[in-house]
Amino acid sequence: MPSEKTTAVRFPMKRREYSIYIMTTKPSIPKGTRDFLPEETARRNYIFDTIREVYELYGFRSIETPAMENLSTLMGKYGEEGDKLLFKILNSGNFLSDLQPGDINPSHLGHLASVLCEKGLRYDLTVPFARFVVQHREEIKLPFRRYQIQPVWRADRPQKGRYREFYQCDADVVGSDSLLNEVELVEIIDEVFSRLNINVDININNRKLLTAMAERIGAADKITEVTVAIDKLDKIGPEGVEEELRAAGIDEEGIAALRPVIGLQGSNDEKLAAMRSAFGDIPAGAKGLEETEFVLGALSSLGLRSRVTYNPALARGLNYYTGCIFEVKALDTQIGSITGGGRYDNLTGIFGMPGLSGVGISFGADRIYDVLTTLDLFPPETGRTTQLFFVNFGDEAATTRCLKLASAARKAGIRTEVFPDAVKMKKQMAYASALGVRYVAIIGGDELSAGTVTLKDMDRREQQTVGQADLVETVRAGL
Amino acid sequence: MPSEKTTAVRFPMKRREYSIYIMTTKPSIPKGTRDFLPEETARRNYIFDTIREVYELYGFRSIETPAMENLSTLMGKYGEEGDKLLFKILNSGNFLSDLQPGDINPSHLGHLASVLCEKGLRYDLTVPFARFVVQHREEIKLPFRRYQIQPVWRADRPQKGRYREFYQCDADVVGSDSLLNEVELVEIIDEVFSRLNINVDININNRKLLTAMAERIGAADKITEVTVAIDKLDKIGPEGVEEELRAAGIDEEGIAALRPVIGLQGSNDEKLAAMRSAFGDIPAGAKGLEETEFVLGALSSLGLRSRVTYNPALARGLNYYTGCIFEVKALDTQIGSITGGGRYDNLTGIFGMPGLSGVGISFGADRIYDVLTTLDLFPPETGRTTQLFFVNFGDEAATTRCLKLASAARKAGIRTEVFPDAVKMKKQMAYASALGVRYVAIIGGDELSAGTVTLKDMDRREQQTVGQADLVETVRAGL
Repeated sequence: MPSEKTTAVRFPMKRREYSIYIMTTKPSIPKGTRDFLPEETARRNYIFDTIREVYELYGFRSIETPAMENLSTLMGKYGEEGDKLLFKILNSGNFLSDLQPGDINPSHLGHLASVLCEKGLRYDLTVPFARFVVQHREEIKLPFRRYQIQPVWRADRPQKGRYREFYQCDADVVGSDSLLNEVELVEIIDEVFSRLNINVDININNRKLLTAMAERIGAADKITEVTVAIDKLDKIGPEGVEEELRAAGIDEEGIAALRPVIGLQGSNDEKLAAMRSAFGDIPAGAKGLEETEFVLGALSSLGLRSRVTYNPALARGLNYYTGCIFEVKALDTQIGSITGGGRYDNLTGIFGMPGLSGVGISFGADRIYDVLTTLDLFPPETGRTTQLFFVNFGDEAATTRCLKLASAARKAGIRTEVFPDAVKMKKQMAYASALGVRYVAIIGGDELSAGTVTLKDMDRREQQTVGQADLVETVRAGL
Repeated sequence: MPSEKTTAVRFPMKRREYSIYIMTTKPSIPKGTRDFLPEETARRNYIFDTIREVYELYGFRSIETPAMENLSTLMGKYGEEGDKLLFKILNSGNFLSDLQPGDINPSHLGHLASVLCEKGLRYDLTVPFARFVVQHREEIKLPFRRYQIQPVWRADRPQKGRYREFYQCDADVVGSDSLLNEVELVEIIDEVFSRLNINVDININNRKLLTAMAERIGAADKITEVTVAIDKLDKIGPEGVEEELRAAGIDEEGIAALRPVIGLQGSNDEKLAAMRSAFGDIPAGAKGLEETEFVLGALSSLGLRSRVTYNPALARGLNYYTGCIFEVKALDTQIGSITGGGRYDNLTGIFGMPGLSGVGISFGADRIYDVLTTLDLFPPETGRTTQLFFVNFGDEAATTRCLKLASAARKAGIRTEVFPDAVKMKKQMAYASALGVRYVAIIGGDELSAGTVTLKDMDRREQQTVGQADLVETVRAGL
């Protein structure tokens, strides 16, 4: 709250005075969160609407879950680090009522938090979805194809491109083992990025092949370490990966066995052949190759526009993946992964419903926004709201006429504004211009008596006089 | 988390066993929050999309603000009761670091909460909007017409129709004193409810008239009590209102002066005339009548489809209103107010930017949902997702053909699914039927060799054979 002294400043004041005044009292929002101005919101909605439309074309249906989940639903699902990054909500009412004297121990903050808080903000859309499937098992039809576009919250240290509140755009199919789901999800990725005009490389791999690799080097118990190391190939290079494997206790023989994978080059078929000769004798390897070949084969018969690359070093961080995995990179920028996903065989098991397989993808809206901005790919119409703008001269009869014409224009689907105040024409034109309005309509005394409108096309810098009865049709034809 | 014993149950199991099993372990969500299944989400989006479209037709532009605001932004803005209903978010990291020994005092929970929590979930969209306008003053153009459709959270006791998480759908104009804004907002209300096919009565009043009434009875300092009492006319009747006024310390003479208002009947013009003779000599009364007459006059020249009623007893609870106020009731049900709004002259003053007038409305999406459900007014197509469904026989060549035809159908804008698993035809048809699919396409061995598709129209219970090349056009023509 500003001090009494600052609120006593008189309004209106000059812009310069005003700027100085505001700078000293400006309110703010929590770090890592964002306000979205109309232009940004329109651009974000362009991304969300594109994803939503494609999801719906493929028969996915939208669900929503609450922002707050019980902490018992969220805790333990994202690892120890994830638990710390959950935003916890203070119990309402007398939140101290269950507190015992021993609870306040600064070295056991997690325990105290669990007494003070029963709820938390959702950390992703996957765990709430698993909870949803189990809770509403009797109300949904399997296989269940759902999409969900909602914000999630993480108490991460904010930095460039990393926020504490951000949207996820997920689609999943649960209750079907068929690889056709994988095929369709890759088609969806291709369709979304084609519509957004982003050239992408869709990387595909299979966790069963990673299992086979870990088995081959006798480190089945170290599969996490092996995949985490291989996952870093892009960032730290082959030598860095080898060092990480060594640090994880993989011996030189094991590292030698993995070397062909880490540096594998060539076409998808060449890489698959190399992998088959190296790991095809291990059951998990054979299965992983068979699945990968099926998906790649079906995709090539469908003729996608995006590049699809079999990448045996792709691991994806999340440990719940068990089959096919995907990761998408934009080709023309250095912005990292913009979409990812994969198959998981037991996500609902944590809520007491084992044996249900699922596969899903998630578009990273913030990074896609950055790609579209960097490559200047937002359509010019995005964010253009008002199409027809009526200048206000303060004359009652003219204003009434404007209101009626505006009403008729809106009924024809034209986004229309009547300037509310009879301020100087220059100011009204500046407003219309700042908003990127296409047509400005002027009804002054002359036009009122002649039954006409002076219509300015702001894009073409042209002006014409049209009959009031023809205004709507003229504007509609011009848009 | 389920116990070890329950997770050991083998899958698949019979439906009955399964139901019993799930009932004992079912996860849940916090009380007062909701999951939305696909049908509900589609119906809710029908409401949101209608409101959004109309807002945009009137040149309103969408903004978004974060779910979390600093508590310094929220506290003290909703009264003492409101402060208690804010959901507070536990500081992340070492949240006890600023705690002093004296802080833990069960009779000063508010103080302890303020040490443990710096952020809270937004309680409405109005205060964040005021904060937004001040914070982004240099980036926006006045008058600023924004709409915002986002959830808000309140730690209210949950009950029928009252939730702890719910959406608000607000539109406001700030930076313009013109009554044309009021006129347009009422037009918007009329347009939204016309599109939704809900017959409504739009009640209009002006807070300046309430001020005049309080002045007349010599109780200008009791304006809150007077308006709160009058606001309850619908619920407690004229005698109840009089009793409340008496309890608030209004004398019998004062109550007598208010009696004509409380029981006022007749047309809008008759009521305005009666109010003019009773309060027209008080400056605030004259101004309030002038404004009301302007708005009603402009509206009647525009020919709205909804009933517009001047209601001198309408007060609206919120104290920040200073001019015109609106409240909308559905005519054919007993569900209360479904939309409200009004003018406020100093909302941004609390953030150090006085002198900015605003006017806004807010649609109550949950109540509108209830009205549409009660009156069975949702369009039958709402929630119908997949339009074309391919049965899967497990034959590789047929499946490839289906995938290609599905891809072509989607390119033509038809929402299409290929069943992923080659399970029994009966099961696939049951799935298509449960989803309300319009067309089912079947390509078995015969169709594959003949180059045809057997196409079932599920609505008309008809079946035809069409060439595969004609499938997309046949379906598109039928939708």
